[in-house]
Amino acid sequence: MDQIYALKGNIFYTPACGQLAIYPESYLVCENGRCAGIFGQLPERYKNIPVEDHSGKLILPGLIDLHLHASQYAYRGLGMDMELLQWLESNAFPEESKFADLEYAEEAYRLFTQQLTKSATTRACIFATLHRPATLKLMELLEEAGLHCYVGKVNMDRNSPDILRETTEESLEETRLWLEESARFVNNKPMLTPRFTPSCTDALMAGLGRLQKEFQVPMQSHLSENIPEIHWVSELCPNTRFYGEAYHQFGLFGGDCPTIMAHCVWSDKEERELMKRQGVYIAHCPQSNMNISSGIAPVKSYLMEGQKVGLGSDVAGGAHLSIFRAMTDAIQCSKLRWRLVDQNIPALTMPEALYLATKGGGSFFGQVGSFEKGYEFDAIVMDDSDLPTTRKCSLPERLERVIYLSDGKPCAKYVAGQRLF
Amino acid sequence: MDQIYALKGNIFYTPACGQLAIYPESYLVCENGRCAGIFGQLPERYKNIPVEDHSGKLILPGLIDLHLHASQYAYRGLGMDMELLQWLESNAFPEESKFADLEYAEEAYRLFTQQLTKSATTRACIFATLHRPATLKLMELLEEAGLHCYVGKVNMDRNSPDILRETTEESLEETRLWLEESARFVNNKPMLTPRFTPSCTDALMAGLGRLQKEFQVPMQSHLSENIPEIHWVSELCPNTRFYGEAYHQFGLFGGDCPTIMAHCVWSDKEERELMKRQGVYIAHCPQSNMNISSGIAPVKSYLMEGQKVGLGSDVAGGAHLSIFRAMTDAIQCSKLRWRLVDQNIPALTMPEALYLATKGGGSFFGQVGSFEKGYEFDAIVMDDSDLPTTRKCSLPERLERVIYLSDGKPCAKYVAGQRLF
Repeated sequence: MDQIYALKGNIFYTPACGQLAIYPESYLVCENGRCAGIFGQLPERYKNIPVEDHSGKLILPGLIDLHLHASQYAYRGLGMDMELLQWLESNAFPEESKFADLEYAEEAYRLFTQQLTKSATTRACIFATLHRPATLKLMELLEEAGLHCYVGKVNMDRNSPDILRETTEESLEETRLWLEESARFVNNKPMLTPRFTPSCTDALMAGLGRLQKEFQVPMQSHLSENIPEIHWVSELCPNTRFYGEAYHQFGLFGGDCPTIMAHCVWSDKEERELMKRQGVYIAHCPQSNMNISSGIAPVKSYLMEGQKVGLGSDVAGGAHLSIFRAMTDAIQCSKLRWRLVDQNIPALTMPEALYLATKGGGSFFGQVGSFEKGYEFDAIVMDDSDLPTTRKCSLPERLERVIYLSDGKPCAKYVAGQRLF
Repeated sequence: MDQIYALKGNIFYTPACGQLAIYPESYLVCENGRCAGIFGQLPERYKNIPVEDHSGKLILPGLIDLHLHASQYAYRGLGMDMELLQWLESNAFPEESKFADLEYAEEAYRLFTQQLTKSATTRACIFATLHRPATLKLMELLEEAGLHCYVGKVNMDRNSPDILRETTEESLEETRLWLEESARFVNNKPMLTPRFTPSCTDALMAGLGRLQKEFQVPMQSHLSENIPEIHWVSELCPNTRFYGEAYHQFGLFGGDCPTIMAHCVWSDKEERELMKRQGVYIAHCPQSNMNISSGIAPVKSYLMEGQKVGLGSDVAGGAHLSIFRAMTDAIQCSKLRWRLVDQNIPALTMPEALYLATKGGGSFFGQVGSFEKGYEFDAIVMDDSDLPTTRKCSLPERLERVIYLSDGKPCAKYVAGQRLF
């Protein structure tokens, strides 16, 4: 189906990390779901295409959330006086066990999908729970909403409460069925999701490694988030030198199939070298890392050493779905890290944070997160007229205000050329 | 004028730091602007008083903002990629100089007052600029709005751009005039406001010390916010052993007249001992301390050693007026401090943060910040029905969600018994 139209407004994107491209009151052309160019005036060949007029507003690439738990949305902002392992026991696991009930799952995932749709996020990599029917329901709801996500049925066969633990065989069989059944979705795709090493036996990990080879699907998990967690993993996997090896030994650490590792707060030199060699994506989740007292990931260092990095809300370790909030959290944490940990590593700047939230994380999805020619047409329109000020702001200033001050809700949103609202 | 009525709803307050009192669906009685008690059923003597029904909602003490710059509201969220001294030069000073123009000042302060009115803050300690007419205009607008604030005409006679510097004589004379003229306001009171030591000569400070004795007014300033600033002060005041002494030598550091010092990120042992001895209030402004790369104030230690502490938004070093946001920023920063700086000092808990935001800061205003009998009747009503979840939440959970997730806008607000909306 041929589709061609343009958006008019103030256009912003980050061609590279630290760069900010700004086109005042220009036309952004969408052709068959992809960006066809930005023009001050529409050229002759586009003269008669429909124009959606967002004059005066800000047009940005859709934001990318590389890590969040849809099944934890119900208790965002709760239990925040706890640390990771305690919080998992008392909050995350009891809530996630409810998703065995498909009716509850549908209600909870419908609410989540509505809220994600209203947000500035166009694409996300999402943890569901270990329940196959509920996970398929989530994918169905996201597909109906027009979002483009990766979704993972979670694997857990140890160190979990009875109501939230599979046998190894069951976990692998359910995963295979889910991979087969989810082939019916066009825009929402499955992603292997062993919860984290403490939840998965070696036999399960090895089986997932075989499934990945067979189905050629990407994989997501958690890595080096929290110091007690890291000690636990080194006890569970005495044959490994660092946490990342616990995945790598089963082929589940980048390479042929893309991998996202959430957090990487405490990754050491060897782990970082392996991540870089294997092209592993780092999902930086600063708010979660504060809420669960994990620490501050060295995200600027990761950028400097050429790692692949994006942002994650990590709902419900993070309380907010907004990736604008994740940007400012990332900047603020990087400033504290500079001040308190390592003054050789400068803080993140606003254009760098925007890059992480768009092209940085977007590249996991292919040509996503930019308005360069050929990129998939994910766009959000931000109206800053409800952020009153007596100051006459320049366009970069208006962008900074939207990032710091807006409620994160765009007034229009496009995913791969399709307008959601 | 006799005034008596009750609010009905779920009532929360913090009788002491770390304690949380909760009265499900109860009556909070206001008598002549003060709290007269909380009752499950209205007793006989109150049987016929009017009841404002907020059933199902949360009723909290009004929030207290111990430190913000009204004149910086226009550029909140801007220039956040800079550190303190650079940011003052390029953002704060140019904007503040505009307040020489009373017409601009009125426009800017009207917008600020509208936004503060809509917020959950009932009382604040506010920096204006050095301009007397503009400062009186701000006090007039706050008075009209029904807020109860302390406001300071700023003093600056050195190390400031020409357009934002008074002579010493002028500064003292304008301050005296302003103190006299502001006697006409009932609920909004003047507070001496030497910007910070680098901006004020010894002669100015000495003069302000004399004015304080004469007029018996409180005083606010900045203290030990940022490391380069502290070095600068030690150069400017070679006779002092620590920053606080630069105020104390002129009698401007607590004692008879209450004093608020914003930040205290890097106060050393001697400074802390002096603060405690003099009863100096610490305005903890965590978001500002992140944005301007200052660090993390040891607020939990301050509580443990018995200092007087409250929260500040520090707009525009902080980008958000919301003191709910200041609470979660304070908790998150305290967790990072525990993790990265000192594991002997635990993180702040949610009830402690609520205490700081209410009774902690409120005590600066007298009996303010609690619903105990005799306290001034400052209350906000929070409607959490727009924070959807599939979870059935307990009352403490609903409070935590409001603190973490709400936009900070109450649906009803009372100051000293007067309903603002």
